[in-house]
Formats: sequence, C-alpha cells, structure tokens
Amino acid sequence: MKYKIVAESIPTIPWENKPANSSEIILRYSKNPIIQRNHLPTTNSIFNSAVVKFGDEYRGIFRCDDRRREMLLHSGRSKDAINWDISPKPIKFANKPADLPEFEFGYDPRVVKLDDKYYITWCNCCNGYTIGVGYTYDFETFYQLENAFLPYNRNGVLFPKKINSNFAMLSRPSDAGHTPFGDIFYSESPDMEFWGRHRFVMKPTKGWQSTKVGAGPIPLETSEGWLLLYHGVLTSCNGFIYHFGAALLDLEKPWKVIAKSAPYLMSPQTIYECVGDVPNVVFPCASLIDKDTGKMCIYYGAADTVTALAFAYVDDIIDFVKNNKANY
Amino acid sequence: MKYKIVAESIPTIPWENKPANSSEIILRYSKNPIIQRNHLPTTNSIFNSAVVKFGDEYRGIFRCDDRRREMLLHSGRSKDAINWDISPKPIKFANKPADLPEFEFGYDPRVVKLDDKYYITWCNCCNGYTIGVGYTYDFETFYQLENAFLPYNRNGVLFPKKINSNFAMLSRPSDAGHTPFGDIFYSESPDMEFWGRHRFVMKPTKGWQSTKVGAGPIPLETSEGWLLLYHGVLTSCNGFIYHFGAALLDLEKPWKVIAKSAPYLMSPQTIYECVGDVPNVVFPCASLIDKDTGKMCIYYGAADTVTALAFAYVDDIIDFVKNNKANY
Amino acid sequence: MKYKIVAESIPTIPWENKPANSSEIILRYSKNPIIQRNHLPTTNSIFNSAVVKFGDEYRGIFRCDDRRREMLLHSGRSKDAINWDISPKPIKFANKPADLPEFEFGYDPRVVKLDDKYYITWCNCCNGYTIGVGYTYDFETFYQLENAFLPYNRNGVLFPKKINSNFAMLSRPSDAGHTPFGDIFYSESPDMEFWGRHRFVMKPTKGWQSTKVGAGPIPLETSEGWLLLYHGVLTSCNGFIYHFGAALLDLEKPWKVIAKSAPYLMSPQTIYECVGDVPNVVFPCASLIDKDTGKMCIYYGAADTVTALAFAYVDDIIDFVKNNKANY
Amino acid sequence: MKYKIVAESIPTIPWENKPANSSEIILRYSKNPIIQRNHLPTTNSIFNSAVVKFGDEYRGIFRCDDRRREMLLHSGRSKDAINWDISPKPIKFANKPADLPEFEFGYDPRVVKLDDKYYITWCNCCNGYTIGVGYTYDFETFYQLENAFLPYNRNGVLFPKKINSNFAMLSRPSDAGHTPFGDIFYSESPDMEFWGRHRFVMKPTKGWQSTKVGAGPIPLETSEGWLLLYHGVLTSCNGFIYHFGAALLDLEKPWKVIAKSAPYLMSPQTIYECVGDVPNVVFPCASLIDKDTGKMCIYYGAADTVTALAFAYVDDIIDFVKNNKANY
Amino acid sequence: MKYKIVAESIPTIPWENKPANSSEIILRYSKNPIIQRNHLPTTNSIFNSAVVKFGDEYRGIFRCDDRRREMLLHSGRSKDAINWDISPKPIKFANKPADLPEFEFGYDPRVVKLDDKYYITWCNCCNGYTIGVGYTYDFETFYQLENAFLPYNRNGVLFPKKINSNFAMLSRPSDAGHTPFGDIFYSESPDMEFWGRHRFVMKPTKGWQSTKVGAGPIPLETSEGWLLLYHGVLTSCNGFIYHFGAALLDLEKPWKVIAKSAPYLMSPQTIYECVGDVPNVVFPCASLIDKDTGKMCIYYGAADTVTALAFAYVDDIIDFVKNNKANY
Amino acid sequence: MKYKIVAESIPTIPWENKPANSSEIILRYSKNPIIQRNHLPTTNSIFNSAVVKFGDEYRGIFRCDDRRREMLLHSGRSKDAINWDISPKPIKFANKPADLPEFEFGYDPRVVKLDDKYYITWCNCCNGYTIGVGYTYDFETFYQLENAFLPYNRNGVLFPKKINSNFAMLSRPSDAGHTPFGDIFYSESPDMEFWGRHRFVMKPTKGWQSTKVGAGPIPLETSEGWLLLYHGVLTSCNGFIYHFGAALLDLEKPWKVIAKSAPYLMSPQTIYECVGDVPNVVFPCASLIDKDTGKMCIYYGAADTVTALAFAYVDDIIDFVKNNKANY
Repeated sequence: MKYKIVAESIPTIPWENKPANSSEIILRYSKNPIIQRNHLPTTNSIFNSAVVKFGDEYRGIFRCDDRRREMLLHSGRSKDAINWDISPKPIKFANKPADLPEFEFGYDPRVVKLDDKYYITWCNCCNGYTIGVGYTYDFETFYQLENAFLPYNRNGVLFPKKINSNFAMLSRPSDAGHTPFGDIFYSESPDMEFWGRHRFVMKPTKGWQSTKVGAGPIPLETSEGWLLLYHGVLTSCNGFIYHFGAALLDLEKPWKVIAKSAPYLMSPQTIYECVGDVPNVVFPCASLIDKDTGKMCIYYGAADTVTALAFAYVDDIIDFVKNNKANY
Repeated sequence: MKYKIVAESIPTIPWENKPANSSEIILRYSKNPIIQRNHLPTTNSIFNSAVVKFGDEYRGIFRCDDRRREMLLHSGRSKDAINWDISPKPIKFANKPADLPEFEFGYDPRVVKLDDKYYITWCNCCNGYTIGVGYTYDFETFYQLENAFLPYNRNGVLFPKKINSNFAMLSRPSDAGHTPFGDIFYSESPDMEFWGRHRFVMKPTKGWQSTKVGAGPIPLETSEGWLLLYHGVLTSCNGFIYHFGAALLDLEKPWKVIAKSAPYLMSPQTIYECVGDVPNVVFPCASLIDKDTGKMCIYYGAADTVTALAFAYVDDIIDFVKNNKANY
Repeated sequence: MKYKIVAESIPTIPWENKPANSSEIILRYSKNPIIQRNHLPTTNSIFNSAVVKFGDEYRGIFRCDDRRREMLLHSGRSKDAINWDISPKPIKFANKPADLPEFEFGYDPRVVKLDDKYYITWCNCCNGYTIGVGYTYDFETFYQLENAFLPYNRNGVLFPKKINSNFAMLSRPSDAGHTPFGDIFYSESPDMEFWGRHRFVMKPTKGWQSTKVGAGPIPLETSEGWLLLYHGVLTSCNGFIYHFGAALLDLEKPWKVIAKSAPYLMSPQTIYECVGDVPNVVFPCASLIDKDTGKMCIYYGAADTVTALAFAYVDDIIDFVKNNKANY
Repeated sequence: MKYKIVAESIPTIPWENKPANSSEIILRYSKNPIIQRNHLPTTNSIFNSAVVKFGDEYRGIFRCDDRRREMLLHSGRSKDAINWDISPKPIKFANKPADLPEFEFGYDPRVVKLDDKYYITWCNCCNGYTIGVGYTYDFETFYQLENAFLPYNRNGVLFPKKINSNFAMLSRPSDAGHTPFGDIFYSESPDMEFWGRHRFVMKPTKGWQSTKVGAGPIPLETSEGWLLLYHGVLTSCNGFIYHFGAALLDLEKPWKVIAKSAPYLMSPQTIYECVGDVPNVVFPCASLIDKDTGKMCIYYGAADTVTALAFAYVDDIIDFVKNNKANY
Repeated sequence: MKYKIVAESIPTIPWENKPANSSEIILRYSKNPIIQRNHLPTTNSIFNSAVVKFGDEYRGIFRCDDRRREMLLHSGRSKDAINWDISPKPIKFANKPADLPEFEFGYDPRVVKLDDKYYITWCNCCNGYTIGVGYTYDFETFYQLENAFLPYNRNGVLFPKKINSNFAMLSRPSDAGHTPFGDIFYSESPDMEFWGRHRFVMKPTKGWQSTKVGAGPIPLETSEGWLLLYHGVLTSCNGFIYHFGAALLDLEKPWKVIAKSAPYLMSPQTIYECVGDVPNVVFPCASLIDKDTGKMCIYYGAADTVTALAFAYVDDIIDFVKNNKANY
Repeated sequence: MKYKIVAESIPTIPWENKPANSSEIILRYSKNPIIQRNHLPTTNSIFNSAVVKFGDEYRGIFRCDDRRREMLLHSGRSKDAINWDISPKPIKFANKPADLPEFEFGYDPRVVKLDDKYYITWCNCCNGYTIGVGYTYDFETFYQLENAFLPYNRNGVLFPKKINSNFAMLSRPSDAGHTPFGDIFYSESPDMEFWGRHRFVMKPTKGWQSTKVGAGPIPLETSEGWLLLYHGVLTSCNGFIYHFGAALLDLEKPWKVIAKSAPYLMSPQTIYECVGDVPNVVFPCASLIDKDTGKMCIYYGAADTVTALAFAYVDDIIDFVKNNKANY
C-alpha cells in the first residue's frame, strides 16, 4: 500500500476483482442491488443505509421507507455484509430528551464506532429536518441524544475520533424542501449535547457538484488527510442527478480541504441507479475498509430505491483525488 | 366471501392466481402491459382508460394520445377484456349543447352503466380543463351533455347509482397546469345538467398521498361502504410519483370517509411503470368485479404510456383498508 | 340620455360634477376614501364591498379584514350612501346546508335585488375558495344557500334578473393561491342550488387585462346589452396592478361579448390606491345607478385597504366601449 | 400596575400619551421616524436597530445599509433615546475566533445586558446567514464570539438572564434567500460557544402570522411569563407584509407558549411604514421598559428604510394577549 | 473643470444649484416630476424617455404607455428642456425592412446624434423583445432600420461616435419576461445592419447592482474614459429596486471597465420614485451636458410612471467613481 | 425518387431496411446506440453530435461530457459512419478573436461543408451561452471566428449554401438556464463576422412542440423547399420530453414556413432514449443523405447520454410533412 490508513482492519470484507481491462477506479458489485426494495413485506424501498463491522459479524442501520412512503430506521445483521437480515420493526429509541417530540420519521443514517459506543446520526424529522443523534452498544437497544443542530440540516456525519478533544461532525445545512443548494460545514461538541465552532468546509461549484454537496460515509483517516467520499448534485432540465466523488481534508483542521476531485468517482449509469423512485441517484452512506490491503467496500443507495455495493482501493481513490484536483 | 358486493356479476373476468408465497394484495398481470403505446399506428401512447362489461363482451373508452401528442378518446371492443380492438378513429360526440366549443381534446375517461345508458366522464379541454359528460347505448353512437363543472377540474367519477335521488360524482378541482394540489369533492345533480351540493371528501395528507389525491375507478358498493380506489401523488426531488390506495365511503353520505389506507396498494415498480413519457405512474381508471367471488380486475395506466392490468380480491382490499387505517 | 337603462331609479345617488376641462370619463370622489381602514376598532381594512338601495336608505355588505388579518363580511347601513354605519359584528348566516363546514372566512361580496330577496355572493373559504350564496330580506337576518360551485372560484356576480328562465352568474375559476390567470365564465341555475350550462365569456389578453379578468359590480341592463364593469390585472416586475374597464354582453346570451374596452376606465393613481396592504389596486364591487339620468356611482376597493367612490355617466361608458373596442 | 415586571427601571423613557378617545394599545410617536434614511451621508437606510439603557444615557447598535446597499452595524449614543449620534464608521469586532471569515456584512442586531456585558446578536453573513454573537462593555470596543448556529438562521434574540443555568436564545431557522417560511426555536448554551437543547417554540399559522414568525426585542420577564413581541408575515399577491404581535412564554421552559395574540398589535399603516425600500414593514428589534410604570417604548424598523418609535403599557399588552388568544 | 469632456456644449441646460450643506453629488430638480403620467389625455404614464439638443431647442422621444397599458414612442419638442410639447400620436416609422413585422410596441428609447442623423434605439417588441434601430433628421419623419440583435435584448445604447471605425452599441441580453439577470455587452457594426464582435462588459455583482445592470444615457466621452451612467437592480423580498451608478470605460476598447462605483449615485427615495406603477425605480435614459462647465442634466423615469430630472457635475461623478471603485 | 435533392451524394451511407409490415417512416438502427457513454475512459456521455462525409471517410464533432460533467467538443473519424474513433483530447481552437474569453465549454455542435471549409457551430459558453463559430479544412486544425450572436442562444445551424449572397443561420434565442420557451429565428451575415436581418421562423405551438423548438441537422435543399428536421419539447408533470419532426422552408426566404408536421417523426420510446442523464430525449444534430436514393441517415442524441442512428427516405419525410401539415 502506498498510503497509510488509520482504521479497524476488516479482512473478510466482500470483494470482487476488477476486469483486467478496466480503467475504472470503482467497480460495481456484479450482483447488485444487494437489497431489493421489497426486501421486507412492508417496505417500499431500502437505500441510503449504513453498516459497520460488529465482532465477527456486521450490523447496519437501514433506511426503510414503508408503504405509507414514510421514512424509518431499521436495524439489521449480517454474517457476510452482503446478505442482510433486517428487523421487521423500526428502531425505537429509549431515553429521548424531555420535551423533544416523539421520534416520527428519520432517514439517511450513518454509523460510527467511537470508544465503546456505536453512534448513529440521521436526518431527524423533528419540527423540521435536522441531525438526530443516538447510540447503541449492541444494535438491540438504542438511546437517543439531543439533536445536534437546529433545523434545517441533513447528512450529519461524525468523525471516527475526537478532533481538538471534541466530537466532530460534518453536516449540510439545507431548507425545508428539496433544497436546491447545500454546503458542507464542520462543527464540534465537547459532550454530544452542545455544538459549536462551526466552520465552512466546501460548497457546490461546477459540473457534477454544481447544485449541492454532502458528506457520505464516515471519513477515513489516512496519511494524506481525512478521505471523504461525498455526493454532488447537478440539476439537469429533468431534475437532480446525484454522483459521488472524493476529497482529502486536513487531519487537524478538517474544515480545510487539501484536495477534491474534479471528476466524479461514480455517476448513475446502471438500470437500478437510473430507474426507481428517484431516477439517477448514487448516494453512498457507509464503507468498510480493510486497513491492510486498502480494500474499500462502499454501500450506496441507488435511485432512492435499493441498496448497492461497490469496490475500490483506497490508494486508487487518493491518487485519483491528487491527480484530478479541482481548482475551484 | 366476507363482505357483500352490490354490482353486476362478471364471471368471465380475467384472472391469474397469486404465487403461493406472496403477501401482496395486488397481483400484476404477468403479460403486462396489455396495450402497448403503438397499438394503433397513430398513437404515441394508450393509458388511463376505462372498460365495462357489455353483454357477453367488453367495451372500453381509451385515452389515445396521438403523435401530435394530443389527447383523444377512442372506443374499443374485446371478447376477453385483455385483447382489445380499438377503433382507429376518435369518438365524435353528437348533440353537443349549443354554444359549447367543439370537442377538441379529452383524456382520462371513466365509464359506468346507469339505468340503460353507459355514461362517460372525462377531462374535457373546453376553455380550460373540466369534466365532460356523455353517454352511449352501444359504444357506436355517443351523445354529449353539458360539462358538469366550471374549469379547472379533473378525475370526474360517477357513482353507479343515484344517491339521495340524484346523480352523484366525485371530482378533483385543480388548476390550469400540472396542479401541485388536489382534494376529492362530491357533487350531486338531479338531471345530469345542473350540479350542486358540493361536499369535501378528502385531501392529500402524508407520504404517498401528500401532494394530491383523485378518484380512480367507479366506486364499488359493498356492505362496508363504497369501496373507492384512488390515486395519490408524492413529490420527490425529481417529480411526481403516482400510487394508488383504497378508501371506504359512507353509503348514504359518500363524502364521509369511513376509512382510508395509510399504506398504498400499488406503487410504480416495474419497468413499464417506471419508464415512459411520465416516469413512475400507476393510475387506475376502471375495474371489473365478479360479485360472487369478489375478484377484481383493475385497469391502470402505467407511466402515462401503456395500459396494464392487476388482480385482487375485494375482501382483501377491504380488510387492508380496515387494518391499515390512516388516522390523518 | 342616449341609451336606455333597465334598473331601479335612484335619484338621490351621491354625485360630484366633473371639472369643466376634464376629458376623463370617471371622476374620483373628492373626499375619498369614504371608508377608512380603521373605521371599526377591530378592522385592519375595509374594501371590496357592495351596496344597494334599500327603501329610502342604503344597505351594504362590507369586506372587513380584522386584525388577525382574516376576512369577514359585515353589514352596514347609510342614509346618503357615503357615510356608513357598519355593524361591529360579522354576519352570521342561518340555515346553513347540512354537512357544509361552518362559515369561516369570506370576502369580496356582491349584492343584488332579485324578486323580493337581496342575494349576496362572496368568495367563501370552504375547503377551498368558492362562491358562497346567501340572501336577506332586511340586512338583519341572513340565510345561506349551497355554494354555487366547486372550488376554486372567485368573483361570483349574479345578474339582476333571470336569463333563459334561470338564475345567471358570472364567476372567475381560479386556483388555490394568488392565481396568475383567470377567465370570466357564465353559469345558470334553475333553483340557486344546482348550477350548470357553463359558458366561457372572456379571458385575459393584453395590457391592463393581460393576467386575469373578473366581473365587478352587478351587470346593468341597457339598450346596448349588459354593461359589465370588470377588473383586469397586469403583472409588472413588482407585482399585480388592478385596473378596471367595461364590456357589453349580449342580452340573451350574456356569454357573448359585444364589445370590450381596449383602454381601461380607471387605474390606480392616487396615494390611497397606490399605497396600502396591496399597492396598486382599484377593484369595483358595486354601483348605484339613477336610470333617469344615467348617473353611475361606483364603489371600489383601493389598495386592498380602503373603500372609495367614483362617478360616471352610463352614456359615457357605453360610448367609450363602443369607440375603443378591443379587437382581441 | 396589574402585572409584575422583572427589569431595570428606566424612568426617563421617552413617552407620549395616547389621545383620549383611542382604543389602540400601541401609539406611534408623533415625530416618527426618529432616524431618517440619510441620517449619515453614507447611509441608504437605518432601521431594524437595537438600543439599551447605558448609565444615564442610551446606547444602540444600528443597522445601517450603506449606498452600496450592503448591511453594516454602527454604534450610536443618545441622551434622550430619541436623538441619536450614530458613529460614521461601522463596528469592527476584535478577537474573532480563528478560521472564521472576516466580518463582511451583518444586520438586524439585538442587544441585551447580561451580567457585566452587553451582548449583541445579529444576522451574520458568514458563508451563509447565521447568528453572530459579540459583546461590549462600553460600546467602544466590541468582541466577537463564535457564531451560535450553522447557517441558515436569522433573528437570534438572547434572553436577559440564564435559564436552567444556561444562556438561552430564540432564533428563526431560515433558508439562503428571502425565506417563505420560518418558525421560532429556543436553544441553550453553557458558555456562549456551544449551543444545543434546541426546542420548537412556535410556527406561522394564519392571517398576519401565516408565512413566518420571528422574535423581536429581548423578551421581558413578567409575572405572567416572558413577554415576547414577535413579527409575523402575511404574503399578499404583491409581497410580504410584516406586522407584529405578542406572546407569553413559560418562565421555566420558554419554548412553551402560554398564549399568543390572534390579532396583531401593529401593522404597517403610515406612509413611512408602507413606502420605502421594502413597502409594508414594521419590524421591532428593541424596547425600553420602565418597570415601575410598565411604560414600554418599542423601536422598530419601518419599510426597511427608517427607524420609528411606538409606546405601550405592558399591562395593556399582556391583557391583549390574554383576551385575544389564538387557538392555533 | 478638472476633466475634459468631448461633447456638444449646451450652455442653456436647465440647472438648479445644490443647497450649501449638501454632500450629495446628484440633486433632484425641485419641481419634479417634469412630466406627469396624464400629460396626454391618452397616457397612463410617461417615463424612461430620451432628449437631445436640436438647434436652439430640444427634441425628445418619449415612452408613453397608453391606457391599454401598451408601450409606444412619441416625439416631443421643448424650448427649455423642461416644459415639453409631446405629440399626441405615436411615431410611425417609414422604410421598415421587408418581412419584419409591423411596429407594434416599443419602449425605453435612447437618442444620439451621429453625423447628420439622430439615431434612436429602443426595446422593440418584434417576435420577442430586441433592440429596434431608427433615425430621423428632423423628429418629424422617422426611418426604421433592421433590429440590431436577435431577441431577447433590452437597453440598447449607441456610442456617440464610431469606435474602431464601426458603430458601437451597449445592450443587455435578457429573457422573455421580467428577467432576473442581466449583463451589459458591447457590439459593433460596420453599417447599422449587421452586428458582431460582441464583448462582455460587466455583470451584476453585489448590493444595488446584484440582480441586473443596464446602460442608461448615451456614454459621455471624457479625458478619463467613457462615462457611463447605468442602472442596477437589487431584489428585495418585495421586488426589484432600480438604482443608478456610474462607470468609466476604456476609450478604445469600451468593453474594458476602468472603474465602476461601489455605491449608487441615486436610489428611489422620493414619493414619485417610490410610489407608482412600479414602486422603487429610478431609471436614467438621457443626459444633456454643457461641456464647458461640466453641468449634466439627467432625465430619468420614476416608478415607471413619470419623468424626472436631476443635476450633477461631471467632475463630481468622475471623482465619485474613482474614489469609490468597486473591486468586484 | 419523387422529390429532387440538392446535396452531395453519399452512396455508402449506413442503411437497414424497414421490416415489411412497418408503417413507420423512421427506423431506428438495430444496434443502437452506436456510441456508448463510456466510449472514452474520460467521458460521462457522448451525444448531440454531428458528422459529415470527408473524402471516402467520415468525420465528426462530438459532444463529449467528461466526468467533471463539463461539456467539450472532440473530433472523430470513421470509415463506415458507424464505428467511430474519437480523439481523446478536446478540440483546441486556434486564432481566437482578441478579447474573447478562452474556450471554456461547448456543446451540441453542427457541421456543414461550405465552399472549401467545414464550418462548425456550437453552443459556446462565453459569458453566457451563445453560438460559437469555427471552421476546419481537415478536422485536425480548427479555427475560431467571432461568436455569431449575443447570449443567450443555442442550436445555431448554418445553411449549406449562401442565401441572398449571405451566410445564413438558424438559431434559438434562449435564457440563462434550462429555458422553458424557444422560437427558431433566421439570420444572415456577409462575412461570418457581423450578423443581422434577423427573421422569425417558427415558435412552439401545441403537443410535442408546445414548449420550445430548435433546428436539428443542417437543412437539406430539395425541390419542395429546405427540409428541416427540428426538435420540439413538451413539458410533462415530470419534465421535458424531446421529440423531433420536420418542416419545409421557402428556398429563397427560409424564414417562411411552407409546412410543418403536426405529428412528430420520432419520440423517445426505447430504453436508451427514455433512461439516462436526461430521460426522454431524442435530439438530432446531423444527417447524411444519398441524393440519388433519398436515403437519410439521422444521428441523434438519446437521453443526453448516448449517440444513436435512424434511417428514413427523404421522399417519405416530405410526404409526411405535406400530408400532416399543422395548421398552427
């Protein structure tokens, strides 16, 4: 490996090798989608979901839109990170802070292990969309904390370790609807209850990232900086197109962008990415990394309908970012 | 059968049995779509159409958008309700009320037998979209009546018998464009010429029915109330998604909703429902019912492009509504 | 007088003579506005209101927006048609048809005497804006009838006599918001309960009447046709501008426009018409006519804030329409 | 006095008595506006500004839009709270937190004395509008703290004492433009650096407060709860209209609304409120209260152009809220 | 005088001296507006008009919106440049190029003397708004040339002499409606028939010039460059506000901006500028200059309703631009 | 052949015969798309491209959107007009006119041979979208000329010979975004530098051509007039749908439309036309014609993603236009 990764090593990560003649950095899993929209009898779609290593197995928090078309979080378990057993009941959070409204709807979860807890962040519909925060030890009992921010906010993504002795989170302030703008910001918290020291990270500029940008999976600590996969949206005459690319953020001051890729890493091209409830979406929310080989397994929602998988080497992505720096 | 149906019995209704392991209430016909977009050499698409039993055969009124992309009504005949012989010429209405403009364009027809006539309602482009009304005895000669309402209105659906001694119609007041709202209202007429006693029935609320709702096929009289299939629209960031669900309306005061389903019955999921002139549309306009078995055969437009068929038992739908009541 | 008027003669109509050198057809009352916005301690504004002769006195229905900024109807009485005693309490209608929601809000009333009743129409907020209908004998007790139409509709204006043996009404179908379009339609009813035979009358075309048009005061029967004052809206880069002009409609078939004026009769020009809750509005809702002299006294709302008065001769208006016919 | 006020007593508050026959609770100052738009040779307008008692004098933070039409904060001093000496130079904040962008533009300040500091909050243009926070001891040197929240936020208003041992702030999350929505939220901070425990307070509902609501002057502690003046916006067909009304919030849990007024307290009615850069705006940002008499002197921006003054008794306002409670 | 002006000297230019204590560069004429909206019995408004010296007298082309609210060009004559005799009939152009549609509507004219002709440019409604071009020798007979550009374009302003041996024009490409954007471009023509060599000049940036910018009067040749007055638009929550400022353009390559003013020179502040058909507009279309004294007399439309006059010294304006350069 | 074609004869044009029973005029190539989106390792999509005969081979200018999602022009060569060798580097133009900004982005090229040059027009992003013009002799060195017009303009298409001794171009004035309108205009130039004599050709009317229209391939001179294929857009509730049809233009005065087709010739119906970056687009930019047989080979972009091919006889298209004339 060319670059050093700071993360748990997950040697049993799912993997398919690229075809010999491929110049692509990202390889879609040949059996995509790994989770179909009707995986549960009550679901309309399962996508934009997060998974983590859990002992010898895997656990995940899944965005399951039910047939009312309401957005719920379900937990799931898997032995191979591909075949998932998703709980038929949505997650119920215990210990909700007083005077917060009952959990109603939530979506686009991320999960990260920090100390002994698995922290979950999600878009929490709580008098307006904002970042919900909770944690679990076992993916069976879930505890809710205060929302991180005021509405309107989406795509809250925690860093996997404290920065400047504080918890740190990326998020994307938005509006009350389908938000036609969106910058990534960085915030810190001493206690996961009060948040501040907000810093601007990056904004939409051109091409595939011209309408809005938002953090994807938990950032990965590398020798070159925090490696962040992020989605970017272009507005065609027939709607939004969601792609994703990558950036390197300063290790100490992650609001400083070392480099970001001018080209995308992936755009919606397959039938399951181009056709579904929201055509033309690839939306990554989680990755598994084998620190020894640099194999990265990316979980992404496709067309806001199904869950898919893609493979890449971290070295390749970092080189791609360095060699294709956007100067905007 | 669990519930009683008041309707003509149609024992030769098309039918396919559900796979043994299916938990779905609605089954798509395996040979969908039953009518292709280029069924006639002049058509761009055939969808959102209505059929009825007619003697030993079936007759229908079809929305045929021609290659100018104008919307016209054609009549059709079939022996099995699946293979249709559609007239190459649009319907010409006789007896147009004086000073109404010539029939120009019309779409989304419904048909119902009432006494000795087959009444047709459609969205009539007549100085603005409104509900056109006509009738036929034989599907060969068609007579036009006064428009039921002022513009702007769509989805006018007659009840199959008089209520409070009046003709009764559901409709969805709208605006002059692609209407981002829409409630269902109920109206009565002593004579099919003058309409009044307008009552609010239901409005969009949440999830799949959050943007607008509109009546689908002719309501079915049952022991539990009028069974109404209705479409509901959700606005994603890339446009409208049309689903359908069901409601039970009071038999005497059909503007009173006894129950409506929180989940949808069907959402666009197949390639012919998700891809076409308007991606992501299922839009039911007619059903055939065998009153003795409760078999219901639903005709629906898919992606505003083709006509498709689905099967369900009335008992199952009524139980579904009762067991999944929306409290909103 | 040049033209014949069919109407009650009201010799004590308010009047000011035009300055000798004026070429204007319409003269604003020198003491405008006649009703200030805070005329009642509870009102935010009083405008778009209707008045009629009542014995030796005058009665009126006033749009009084209260300080919640909700729209209510109040009755009022006057001896001289200029100084008004407006009831501090909103009108309560008796006899509301069953299953219609309670009267909530209403605005822009018109009043007409027909047989022994004074009929009132208004924009009735009843699960959407539509035309409310009621009547009174004495302006003390008010009775509510069925709404004339389904939502969304505004500016319902009755004719002062039956046409083709039916009650007849002009109205302007609209949408659920601040409607950026609007045609005038004509409808008939045998009984003030069921309405039909809807006919298109006129649509917005150019200039001051390019965005929407709507009927103003009760049409006046003359030897030249029904004389209709109507408002027309132009959309500037800073919003709507409301003017009014005049048209002559066929006496037998009032949906046939004999002539309409290309120039407006009045546009907002004074400070009380240009400044207020909605800048740049003149909006006529009533007129008093002395049939013997042709004096016409026009009551109009100014800037959606106050009530004003203007004077004109019917002969002058008819000549103006005839000599300035729009050919569009 | 009927109700008890917790505040500094300011006996030299400016005051005019109401006309004997007035039923109005709020009285406009007869010499309004007190600050003209061209008060400084470089200003386009001065409005939406805040003042406080300072020793025997008064100090203020003024929104001064310069002739580039950029929004700046200037400090000012006055002996009588009516005649103001405004510094010709905008405020420069010292001690800006590292990595925050330079102060660029800011507007709509509020000022409150808390312990020994005068805290200032404002809408800070800092990679998006959010709530800037600073303080001064002397209105000569100003220190900047971290922004309270992520963008997009406006109308941040501090409470004049700690609640639950924390600093407490109201704010109105918004979007990146002229925000057509807006709820009031409540947040706490242990240290004026990190904020959390966000709670929903109130949202727009009907009438004058149907589009958005936002906190006005610093809340006033009374025996009946926190008395909050807040602006509310109605959207007419020609734009926003800004009014203000009042609410009582729970003393311990200020996110609980005890009562709010259905009618407004003030709407734009005078020429300087209806005509200017933004027609039809009254926007209160500060009040001076004499705790012994309950006299309240309200400073408000008019038409986004000038600064005006109005008088009221706290007792009257509290009674008004109690007697005119909105049930929505 | 500090700077040299290249222009005809007009010693009898109207003039009022500034008050002694004024720091303003621009002085409004004390008897504004000089032309009222009803100056002609057929006009709704007269504004955005152009005037020139003509022998010992003055001539002008006036935008006269008639009472249909259609935009027409009238010629006018004056002895003192303040009191105008405007022809009651719109201008008819002779020699219209074949196959161009008849002159229908036109507005916002500019006039410049070039060689022996007075060239007129205006916004010509000709299958879309574009720049109409014509000329006259005597303001009695007018000749039409080819439109300079394809739609959509407005604010076409000729230079008063050839540049690079070509005719030269500034214009502002726009869209088919109330255009919420707008840059100034420069174009050349060898023959007033074919145009090309289009160059970008400047775009909207911030503050008063953040939405769109457009050239005003004919540029004035000075020793410091072409002095251009131009309007700039800011979008408030209640609509557009039109201001004007000044720029200096390179004499040889006028698409190169030497400097432009960060602050505006004038914003709408008087009642006749803030109230009218379009509130908050000052829009300059012409100036008269006395080259010996540098006195400049600016004609501008106010509130899209009336015509007004303002005075300034060219030296002052040039210094203002140089001392208040925008760095954006 | 029924009609005479004036063009170079290209006997080796690609061709597939229609199925015997087809009533379609246009036949899609069975191996469509001929160019896949990832044809080059750097491309996101290749579509809306133009080809010409070049000696015994073919050359083309291809719209290649790269993976930044920026639009670039690449040249390509082919022996059979189906299998293309596209240069991996974008075209660099030499000889750019002074003071024009550097070539940044460009798209939707057309190519035509005129005298000894191959002229290229494209949508040139140059301070706003406008028509870029260049030429080549060999498809290796490319020279840039002045932009033909001011922004905003798209779909500039040259005629293959001079008209009235001038170069002639069709174009579609537009706005700065995804333009919801668009007429075709005609312009002339004596020298490819200055353009004028602009004439309106046609506008959107109804059905498939109700939102905007734009010229497609280079017009074909025939005995019946210039045969123009043009795209037309209909706005469904889920976005734009791009079709194409045909028109005949007067040979001498090509702005005069002899006839245009009421029905479309092709609408998006296959999976590669309905699914991709912009669903539901067929967009023709070039055709090859064998003048002896009338075989026409149409190159069109599909779904803004890939390049496809279709076949038709010129005789059939001309008859189609004549027999299906739109009367609007």
